[in-house]
Amino acid sequence: MASKPLKYVLFLGTVRENRLGLRVAKFMQNFLLKAGHDVDFMDAQELNLPLLKKPLHFYKNPSEAPPLLVDLGNRIKEADGYVVITGEYNHSIPPALANLLDHFPGSSFSYKPSGIVCYSPGQYGGMRAAIQLRALLGEIGCISVSNIFGLPQTNKSLDEEGKPLNDHMESGAKRLLTQLDWHAHAMRNHREGFGIPGK
Amino acid sequence: MASKPLKYVLFLGTVRENRLGLRVAKFMQNFLLKAGHDVDFMDAQELNLPLLKKPLHFYKNPSEAPPLLVDLGNRIKEADGYVVITGEYNHSIPPALANLLDHFPGSSFSYKPSGIVCYSPGQYGGMRAAIQLRALLGEIGCISVSNIFGLPQTNKSLDEEGKPLNDHMESGAKRLLTQLDWHAHAMRNHREGFGIPGK
Amino acid sequence: MASKPLKYVLFLGTVRENRLGLRVAKFMQNFLLKAGHDVDFMDAQELNLPLLKKPLHFYKNPSEAPPLLVDLGNRIKEADGYVVITGEYNHSIPPALANLLDHFPGSSFSYKPSGIVCYSPGQYGGMRAAIQLRALLGEIGCISVSNIFGLPQTNKSLDEEGKPLNDHMESGAKRLLTQLDWHAHAMRNHREGFGIPGK
Amino acid sequence: MASKPLKYVLFLGTVRENRLGLRVAKFMQNFLLKAGHDVDFMDAQELNLPLLKKPLHFYKNPSEAPPLLVDLGNRIKEADGYVVITGEYNHSIPPALANLLDHFPGSSFSYKPSGIVCYSPGQYGGMRAAIQLRALLGEIGCISVSNIFGLPQTNKSLDEEGKPLNDHMESGAKRLLTQLDWHAHAMRNHREGFGIPGK
Repeated sequence: MASKPLKYVLFLGTVRENRLGLRVAKFMQNFLLKAGHDVDFMDAQELNLPLLKKPLHFYKNPSEAPPLLVDLGNRIKEADGYVVITGEYNHSIPPALANLLDHFPGSSFSYKPSGIVCYSPGQYGGMRAAIQLRALLGEIGCISVSNIFGLPQTNKSLDEEGKPLNDHMESGAKRLLTQLDWHAHAMRNHREGFGIPGK
Repeated sequence: MASKPLKYVLFLGTVRENRLGLRVAKFMQNFLLKAGHDVDFMDAQELNLPLLKKPLHFYKNPSEAPPLLVDLGNRIKEADGYVVITGEYNHSIPPALANLLDHFPGSSFSYKPSGIVCYSPGQYGGMRAAIQLRALLGEIGCISVSNIFGLPQTNKSLDEEGKPLNDHMESGAKRLLTQLDWHAHAMRNHREGFGIPGK
Repeated sequence: MASKPLKYVLFLGTVRENRLGLRVAKFMQNFLLKAGHDVDFMDAQELNLPLLKKPLHFYKNPSEAPPLLVDLGNRIKEADGYVVITGEYNHSIPPALANLLDHFPGSSFSYKPSGIVCYSPGQYGGMRAAIQLRALLGEIGCISVSNIFGLPQTNKSLDEEGKPLNDHMESGAKRLLTQLDWHAHAMRNHREGFGIPGK
Repeated sequence: MASKPLKYVLFLGTVRENRLGLRVAKFMQNFLLKAGHDVDFMDAQELNLPLLKKPLHFYKNPSEAPPLLVDLGNRIKEADGYVVITGEYNHSIPPALANLLDHFPGSSFSYKPSGIVCYSPGQYGGMRAAIQLRALLGEIGCISVSNIFGLPQTNKSLDEEGKPLNDHMESGAKRLLTQLDWHAHAMRNHREGFGIPGK
């Protein structure tokens, strides 16, 4: 189906000590690369953005915006889709994840799909945060595909290098990616053929 | 952009006495028809389905399913997209709307987009129900486009025949439809060119 | 702590064939009775209410309301708290449950606590529906206590008579009930001592 | 009803430039003070906490925790209830608000009520974030009372000093506070008379 590889931005939005999310990110990064995709990994911990004071699109003059924000904004715009990894804090989206996404305008994400990967050390796999995230991703324009890939008891299913410790990991990731790739191709083709509204 | 018209199913999910939703449905039906689309209006009140005892896909032998369900299921499958009108009861989805949608398998809706129209006599326009509906529509496979068309104080903005009483109605509907049409075309083209996963 | 037993209404909101929820209801009913509480079990299937056309509080003259609604409304008003059992349909509240609750005014539930019990045959235990239900219960006034008792793979944890098949059932129910009882006593004492606002 | 004043912590969780939330906080602070309550105002901007790396309860030895966290934790524990002011970013909870609340264990908040105040410059008043916040507050144990005080078009309803520019502000705040006070008294009386479970 694909000639050109798809470009995905992979978001990891936790900066908490001993974060399990890094295992999930490594696993997903490997999985996406093996599938032949380009992966741009944006890790909230490495990026170290401050708590949101001024989003990129609030700078009247883009040349006054922090170069890191401008660069991230451009890379988000160039992507064909997004894989968003979320933990769950108090049944809600981890602040570092919302904080990363909220720095950029919806127009950078829109008319592209996203896929939600949620995880937790407990049995519910972060599903409550995933549902809140669906609302957030909908609003910024990268609507999330139907499947949500949930990883309960992540410490038992992935090792520290993100290597899967059971068979469900590969099949679960495949189920999500099958839907995400389909939508990413559909939308890329349509963007290339017809542009997007208002442009 | 389009040659063939798009086929939309328009869902209205309220059976409550004096329901305002009918004004919204009439308005949206007219709007969709004027835009050149095919509209298949499914009104929970007319359909008069019972509280969900057995969804269509739970019949092992489809010939044993009620003919009305089979017919509705086929029409849902044939659509290119969905416009779902929701009121708000107790900050949540009206039971008659969930009840209508829950009768059918996700496979009937999937790989197609939906658009949410929410309304209320009050000032918040049903937005809390709309967010719950985004979760439901995501799960059944017809992911909802970013824009949500909200109609606060519906009794002041539409008359009983669905005629708009202010300028926001047309512009609001257009904003939603622009996004919905784009996604419906993108996905239809991709279905026609490449099929859908698993088929 | 308690002299008078607490009166709980136990809501079961599913009418689907082969509903697992009945196991959960039997288990919770036994658990509440053993704890010395009064239990008034309201089963959507038995009550067989139609899809919501007119809630009790929309009848100007209560004598014109269906006697069943009036009776249920009185029993809801007399309760000290609520245990609400929810399955999950398409990540959302089962229509029969919302339909049952939506028939009554918030004033019948308010200034009393509720406890959410969610279940599913799958691994997430209905937690997505539980979160939607928290919004609904908040709006009708019987705010839900912190703990949510989730029962994943209910068919393996309860038999058809609601007998627990593992140790987590009793400890999970106890955790919820400890919180619910505390709040029910606190609010009943305060109602008895000071009335409720606006009365 | 009250002899001792109630102690409320008032949370403001935005650090964004030109934040409207400060108007809301000033208004609510005045309103609470006039009602005779003690108010402890915790402003995310002043507190300037980093993105959550390690919550207070993750320090094995409390003496190693940052003194600011310990101090805030104690003040949260001493409160009888919480007023939580939320804006709305992308239909979700502002990251600075979740970040502030997530630093503390549920046990500091539990068996006390909270009241949600939401605002936005637009017409929906932040109601979508408020619903997500209800889930978060439920999980940390300070269950939110039924009423949600929404302030659409906040720039038109409050001046920069938090002075109300219309009559709805006072009546809206009163509606919330009536419920919150009732629950705060009920729960304080019960804590004082019977303790809380597990202590």
